[in-house]
Amino acid sequence: MTLAPQNPDFEARVRDSFSRQSFMSTIGAELTRIAAGEAEIRVPYREDLCQQHGLFHGGLIGTIADNACGYASFSLMAAEHSVLTVEYKLNLLSPALGEALVARARVARAGRRLTVCSADVFVLQDDAEKLCATALGTFMTLENTSDHSLGTAAA
Amino acid sequence: MTLAPQNPDFEARVRDSFSRQSFMSTIGAELTRIAAGEAEIRVPYREDLCQQHGLFHGGLIGTIADNACGYASFSLMAAEHSVLTVEYKLNLLSPALGEALVARARVARAGRRLTVCSADVFVLQDDAEKLCATALGTFMTLENTSDHSLGTAAA
Amino acid sequence: MTLAPQNPDFEARVRDSFSRQSFMSTIGAELTRIAAGEAEIRVPYREDLCQQHGLFHGGLIGTIADNACGYASFSLMAAEHSVLTVEYKLNLLSPALGEALVARARVARAGRRLTVCSADVFVLQDDAEKLCATALGTFMTLENTSDHSLGTAAA
Amino acid sequence: MTLAPQNPDFEARVRDSFSRQSFMSTIGAELTRIAAGEAEIRVPYREDLCQQHGLFHGGLIGTIADNACGYASFSLMAAEHSVLTVEYKLNLLSPALGEALVARARVARAGRRLTVCSADVFVLQDDAEKLCATALGTFMTLENTSDHSLGTAAA
Repeated sequence: MTLAPQNPDFEARVRDSFSRQSFMSTIGAELTRIAAGEAEIRVPYREDLCQQHGLFHGGLIGTIADNACGYASFSLMAAEHSVLTVEYKLNLLSPALGEALVARARVARAGRRLTVCSADVFVLQDDAEKLCATALGTFMTLENTSDHSLGTAAA
Repeated sequence: MTLAPQNPDFEARVRDSFSRQSFMSTIGAELTRIAAGEAEIRVPYREDLCQQHGLFHGGLIGTIADNACGYASFSLMAAEHSVLTVEYKLNLLSPALGEALVARARVARAGRRLTVCSADVFVLQDDAEKLCATALGTFMTLENTSDHSLGTAAA
Repeated sequence: MTLAPQNPDFEARVRDSFSRQSFMSTIGAELTRIAAGEAEIRVPYREDLCQQHGLFHGGLIGTIADNACGYASFSLMAAEHSVLTVEYKLNLLSPALGEALVARARVARAGRRLTVCSADVFVLQDDAEKLCATALGTFMTLENTSDHSLGTAAA
Repeated sequence: MTLAPQNPDFEARVRDSFSRQSFMSTIGAELTRIAAGEAEIRVPYREDLCQQHGLFHGGLIGTIADNACGYASFSLMAAEHSVLTVEYKLNLLSPALGEALVARARVARAGRRLTVCSADVFVLQDDAEKLCATALGTFMTLENTSDHSLGTAAA
């Protein structure tokens, strides 16, 4: 397994892509860290992000787990390619009650066409992090495809 | 397999629970159908729900697939119990470009403690539905737990 | 979605590949049906295929669910390509006690590179079929790769 | 998260259960390590365990990943309970060519009813281990159920 980035400007490229995802700003998500094969996304608590018990909604947890994995995968890709989520699985582990959610993703294997990545999601409670979910997913390299154009899922 | 509801008032109970999920109103989701072991959720297109190419964000697709499965499962549970997502897997199948997303879930097996449910997600393009994702998940019956109180994941 | 085979001789090709999987004969599996985008595998009960309670072992259930999906996917591929399992998820639904296991797979979407396929697994009890597991997986087209040579996972 | 075993004799109990799984002896699997919340299973290469290219069959990889997770989960359960696989997801990462397969599982979270566990599967090539698959699954505590009796999936 290699986690060597093929694009020296991967950080700028990932941040630019993240900034163009309108849904990330709708949910108040920040890309708090990007490294080769790793990404971290944080969402502060808001009352309008909850399920029926006032916990962070599970869909929000899945959203940032998937997105952190996608950008961890994208960080390793060459400049002419872009990234697509093929699939992911999410296990919810404990109630997501706290001041913020933090998803941390790390690539497990980067192949030419497919990258497999896992993420842990933590909830911040009184400055301590508690693991609340874990995810495992598959991400595809869209060859010679701009991140500004339309990709084709399951291409 | 039985898809017989144990609570004759399941529809009102599901609609009440859905209405208390603030994240559903943040994303503009409507619960468009509920039946015994089945649920449908719809989200009209908005510019602030997108990924970097102007498609519906994958996290949104996962959110309504999970939620439709959760409420399809909840519809079969007795009045004193509530529901919790244990885990789900989502496969993205084609680009989610269109006027609305529709997730349709149907229970595959309802056990005493665990319910397994699948969902297909469609995107509306010029009044035609195109399959854009499919999901399979596991949902837990929280016995003697109000839908108004805090559940415990992986309990 | 198209389920049209690109190789008119897909059945012979799938049967030939199946016959070269030594593990299938170790477990006594038969390929009982192959059609465009569909496959069925059957395993009669044997005492040496069980878990600790005398049920069919879950690993066996996963094995034939994965394999039925793989061959359903392979049936749609052009003659010069071969197939590889990227990933799958299996939910066990009820005890696998009976005279035989039958896995039936059907492609949900066949793309150029990736095919998404689901399978249901049934156990035969007194000539009735009972659903005992369901699976959802992703399969890759290995372009210009013989089914007789070594593929590369996550290529 | 606690990985404290509730049964001081967990190792003997796990080994006894493993020894009663006839499918494990059919595939030549050994339980090479058991600790609180951890398990390792090894399968030496045999010609009758392969897919069409002479690699270890993917079903075999899934089988030992699932089983290692199940026994890692079981090691933490009280003496009067037993374990059941609810579901798992497996990603295949690289060709499984070598002298032996080794699956190592570790519990991510042990709840009262559900345990979430992950496993990595390695293939031994010339005495070096290469990661060839990774899995994430959910396991259920069957309360007051003997490991010698029939459990009920999705109970």
